[in-house]
Amino acid sequence: MAKKTHAETTALIVGGGFAGVACAKKLAEHGISVTLLDKNNYHQFQPLLYQVATGMLGPADIARPLRAIFAKHKTVDVKQAEVAHVDVANRTVRTTDGLDFSADYLVLAMGSQPNFFNTAGAVEHTFPLYSLDDAERLRSRVFEVFEDADSRPELVERGALNFVIVGGGATGVETAGALADLVNEVMPERFHDLAIRAARVYIVDVGHALLAPFSEEAHAYAAKVLQRKGVELRMGCSAKEILEDRVVLSDGSEILTHTVVWAGGLQAPQLASVCQLPQGRGGRFEVERDLSIEGVPGVYAIGDVANIPGADGHALPQLGSVALQAGTAAAHSILADVEGQARPAFHYHDKGIMAMIGRGAAIAEVGKHHHELHGPVGFAAWLGVHAWLLSGVREKVDAFISWGWDNLGHGRAATVIDRPDAARIDWGTEDES
Amino acid sequence: MAKKTHAETTALIVGGGFAGVACAKKLAEHGISVTLLDKNNYHQFQPLLYQVATGMLGPADIARPLRAIFAKHKTVDVKQAEVAHVDVANRTVRTTDGLDFSADYLVLAMGSQPNFFNTAGAVEHTFPLYSLDDAERLRSRVFEVFEDADSRPELVERGALNFVIVGGGATGVETAGALADLVNEVMPERFHDLAIRAARVYIVDVGHALLAPFSEEAHAYAAKVLQRKGVELRMGCSAKEILEDRVVLSDGSEILTHTVVWAGGLQAPQLASVCQLPQGRGGRFEVERDLSIEGVPGVYAIGDVANIPGADGHALPQLGSVALQAGTAAAHSILADVEGQARPAFHYHDKGIMAMIGRGAAIAEVGKHHHELHGPVGFAAWLGVHAWLLSGVREKVDAFISWGWDNLGHGRAATVIDRPDAARIDWGTEDES
Repeated sequence: MAKKTHAETTALIVGGGFAGVACAKKLAEHGISVTLLDKNNYHQFQPLLYQVATGMLGPADIARPLRAIFAKHKTVDVKQAEVAHVDVANRTVRTTDGLDFSADYLVLAMGSQPNFFNTAGAVEHTFPLYSLDDAERLRSRVFEVFEDADSRPELVERGALNFVIVGGGATGVETAGALADLVNEVMPERFHDLAIRAARVYIVDVGHALLAPFSEEAHAYAAKVLQRKGVELRMGCSAKEILEDRVVLSDGSEILTHTVVWAGGLQAPQLASVCQLPQGRGGRFEVERDLSIEGVPGVYAIGDVANIPGADGHALPQLGSVALQAGTAAAHSILADVEGQARPAFHYHDKGIMAMIGRGAAIAEVGKHHHELHGPVGFAAWLGVHAWLLSGVREKVDAFISWGWDNLGHGRAATVIDRPDAARIDWGTEDES
Repeated sequence: MAKKTHAETTALIVGGGFAGVACAKKLAEHGISVTLLDKNNYHQFQPLLYQVATGMLGPADIARPLRAIFAKHKTVDVKQAEVAHVDVANRTVRTTDGLDFSADYLVLAMGSQPNFFNTAGAVEHTFPLYSLDDAERLRSRVFEVFEDADSRPELVERGALNFVIVGGGATGVETAGALADLVNEVMPERFHDLAIRAARVYIVDVGHALLAPFSEEAHAYAAKVLQRKGVELRMGCSAKEILEDRVVLSDGSEILTHTVVWAGGLQAPQLASVCQLPQGRGGRFEVERDLSIEGVPGVYAIGDVANIPGADGHALPQLGSVALQAGTAAAHSILADVEGQARPAFHYHDKGIMAMIGRGAAIAEVGKHHHELHGPVGFAAWLGVHAWLLSGVREKVDAFISWGWDNLGHGRAATVIDRPDAARIDWGTEDES
């Protein structure tokens, strides 16, 4: 390709998550013309979706319109569009509306989708936690079942107040902690008659440790904290089948419930399969150290959709911080291409991993250092880390304030059931039951 | 009925709007056992729904869970339930779930529903602004049409960026002002290519003045401010038919649009017709000065569902402040009944009426006094009045902060399209159009 100036160079980024946004920002800083495609009009702060689902934060606290993020970046053109086909050889993308986009550089950053591992009934009867829509639908269901049980106490025996979380990773543990707090601290103030103590939160995980990527101390600490909150752990056990009104486990036991949260893992999205690229573990694209894809010049893959080699040669985990850093690194690779330099290799700076287990406890691990954070200190640390990651001052302040209120007053103003379609369960009428 | 103590006395309130909540609070203060039924789990601040629809406030800023409002009122039992039948003679209510509730006193406070005046296509193709669900669906549509037009500029000619508001009362004027601000101030920052100037906001009203209940000065001021913002007024003209892609007006002209806001008036809800009570103007119940209903002892009607006689004998308007005061007054009437005293007559204290016309201007009228409020002063006054009416400290503070941010930075974090079902329009594919 003939040598172009920065201003003449175009890049097309598919996906406005941590990776895509970081890449677009860095490219725009250097004057590259960027088109950013996303099926939603917003960037979401994925690790806090469970807070929306449990009514602690509102959707606008954890999502920001992509156009607002790039309002000042005049060379970034945001398009809300669903991608239908990707032609990597020609770096061209076709949307479901029949529009074509192409550019000198193509960055694949389309994220993940839940991996249901072919579990029967999981698609139909579980709530994944991957989009704002998912979180809002789950929230409406959670608050609805309490209302239903309050009107018809006999529904408690039919599992109305049982919540089953499939998967004991960070999302599963954080969701279970937040649900347990809801049951133990918030709901008793709101329901004067209902036998809230009948409510149960379960975690089902096929492994033998919660928070598997963390240390053994963390596994034990998470289990201790959750059990103290009343969460029942069904470890070494998988969900064999999800029915409308129950979960059947691999040990043959059943849990009656209408609220199953799917936190059972991620895989490459459907869209990855239309790129005609080899797909590795989890359906993800194998990338080089410089985040390029072998054999297709000018094409990069970053974030959850890529298996990015770490220092030890193993793929880095699907984490927001990896996506964020890889996004910036891919931009540097593209800039090196434009300038005719050698592309730099991506080095991930491990800032550690962190999980919040309900209101009072958090775990942070940096390298070999294991920190158990209790009470307000843990809360503040956890909050600080997340607020720092949020893109945009307004979100930071709002989320802080919402959290502050919640911590002080058990406020949870965001507990409105505004998705009646997702909330409603046909329990049958009084006579039938 | 045998004389009962306050603690033995029960009241059943249908509807958790301004009227029902005020009534329940006052009764609870005096130890009466209250059951409050509402089909939603939240109380909403109706006059600000248009702010949710235009992305200025989030749903949680203007709605509060009923259970949170009554968390400290142990004698108030909130039930989320849809009412199917009301037997006023026996003061008994049956829900759609088949549950029965009855009490010594029955308070009908079920609010309003939009009045489409049998306009063809209005139910199918317009967005009313009466519930949180309505506002969120409208918001998603508003932001979606900009995205659609950005992807396919030819859609502008098909009316993608035309917004038609049917009705020039307070809701219509406030919505038009907010939409015009969105078009003029917010969107140009977000869409770098789109010809935003092609966007049009219309008000269609069969009358000859905007804000009819206000003074003539207000009519002129509202028209002047809106026209300066680019709003086109089609006065003396009604919407004859609403189609999927256009509005047909009574003068034979058409406006191409996919976003029609119905602000054309209110009537008693469907539920009023199952009470077997005479229905007066607008389908509402005629009440006595003490808010009781003639011929059915122990039954009261308040808020939008009642025609409440004012000092001059004419019915008071359907306003939040009337509902709030009538709710408290109905509680006093019930307390008088319990104590064997004469029921006091309700006297409405007119605090005036107010409307905001976009960011920079507001009108307040108290009695014969007409105030035009400009810039930050008008904004602060308007905000103060509304914040004062909001039930709950958290909402006041949050709404203030959201507004402050918005006023300072054109933030509008709440502009996420999180209701794709309501947003999506089938424009046909590229080839067909």
